Amino acid sequence: MRVAFQGEAGAFSEEACQQLLGPVETQACESFDDVFEAVASGDCERGLIPIENSLAGSIHQNYDLLLRHDLYIVGETFLRVRHCLIGFPGVAVEQVRKVISHPQALGQCAASLRALGVKTEAVYDTAGSVKLLKQSGERVLAAVASRRAAEIYGMQILREGIEDNPENFTRFLAISRQSIAPGAEAKTTIVFTLKNTPGALFKALSVFALREIDLTKIESRPLPGKTWDYLFYVDFIGALQEETIRRALDHLGEYAPLLRILGTYPRAILV
Amino acid sequence: MRVAFQGEAGAFSEEACQQLLGPVETQACESFDDVFEAVASGDCERGLIPIENSLAGSIHQNYDLLLRHDLYIVGETFLRVRHCLIGFPGVAVEQVRKVISHPQALGQCAASLRALGVKTEAVYDTAGSVKLLKQSGERVLAAVASRRAAEIYGMQILREGIEDNPENFTRFLAISRQSIAPGAEAKTTIVFTLKNTPGALFKALSVFALREIDLTKIESRPLPGKTWDYLFYVDFIGALQEETIRRALDHLGEYAPLLRILGTYPRAILV
Repeated sequence: MRVAFQGEAGAFSEEACQQLLGPVETQACESFDDVFEAVASGDCERGLIPIENSLAGSIHQNYDLLLRHDLYIVGETFLRVRHCLIGFPGVAVEQVRKVISHPQALGQCAASLRALGVKTEAVYDTAGSVKLLKQSGERVLAAVASRRAAEIYGMQILREGIEDNPENFTRFLAISRQSIAPGAEAKTTIVFTLKNTPGALFKALSVFALREIDLTKIESRPLPGKTWDYLFYVDFIGALQEETIRRALDHLGEYAPLLRILGTYPRAILV
Repeated sequence: MRVAFQGEAGAFSEEACQQLLGPVETQACESFDDVFEAVASGDCERGLIPIENSLAGSIHQNYDLLLRHDLYIVGETFLRVRHCLIGFPGVAVEQVRKVISHPQALGQCAASLRALGVKTEAVYDTAGSVKLLKQSGERVLAAVASRRAAEIYGMQILREGIEDNPENFTRFLAISRQSIAPGAEAKTTIVFTLKNTPGALFKALSVFALREIDLTKIESRPLPGKTWDYLFYVDFIGALQEETIRRALDHLGEYAPLLRILGTYPRAILV
């Protein structure tokens, strides 16, 4: 099985591929658009995309791409984001003068890096910063990236888990051209719009509450300049193949001008 | 009045200060923490913080800081994010070979920049990229930032509105040590948690629906490893000084283990 992901070799997305799908062949893509294209064209059987991070929130761009393509969510996994300080083999932490990485990774390790008294410089990619480190040949330089990125480029982990907040995880979704029938422990992801009237969301949620369907995510996103005002992202426990779920979605369709089922898939448990 | 904002002079946050508060004295801060500190210590009467972007979503870090500090939201404004391609005076767009900016700004202008056939390089700050441009003295270099940043550093706007998606706006909040009593057109922002049981959110929303209170935002954010599972961000139309609103929040308190009122303030209309 070939799986597309965004980023360079050693990206957290690639780690998520292995965590969810086992030892698969991975294909690095420059952008999220390229990941969707790789799956839609049949180049790859699966794509793996980040959909939300516990610190940074939902990745709206990937919801937009899910709405634009006719692909299905077929799996999910939660990856613990553990940043490593990576340098040349034989280098001690005290020798490091400057640290490079993606600004988000630098931001997530700000306190640790400040304590080290190093300068920081933003570069485009997390795993890519290890590639740049290697190319530079500079022994006073270090990068912030995953353990895997260090291994791929033959660099050394100077310190592991340097993120300031340990509650840092990213939820990834697997996408495919074919939908699947998940087993008993299933989750379903939908997107819908509502007319902007008081109580509209309350009515919409009643279709789940009255059937004791458990919501695991609800988020509204303002869409200015559109005919609808808000787009709602909802995840709930249950498979599309269950009668109760079908009835709930039929019922929701009475209130929602737009309703898209993005996929039904085995639920991952956040550990 | 002195107002703290995060970023360099010419940042979109500074533009939002002027849009909401008029010609005030602004104070540039390195981080969002510094903005909160400046207000909490009395150094500045107000702080201006971005809370959500229509493309990138909510800025959870600022919700966390609102929860950590005893400050009040006293105003809001929506700023249209209009990116400019900025170069040296006298330079033509065709001469530009490389463009620098914050990765998020580069990402929001990806299609425009690709069409220009230029290389891009990520730097830490949007307005800061114009400062770097000026320091470099390189006439083949350009930056992506606000119109104001170009003016501050005496650079030229080569092209305006180069963002790929015109529906790009950021909502900013003004924070203060003192709460205010807004007029008729008010909005209130609260944060709460719920026990993770089916229908919990439905019950919570009933306190608003049964009183015909209009929600303008609802978002849930997973908090792994905490005693509560989800944190809800809710904005609604109405002031804390109204009897109906007080009753609704009293009622909500019966379901919510944690309930924090972050502020009640005049509502801005998104244009």
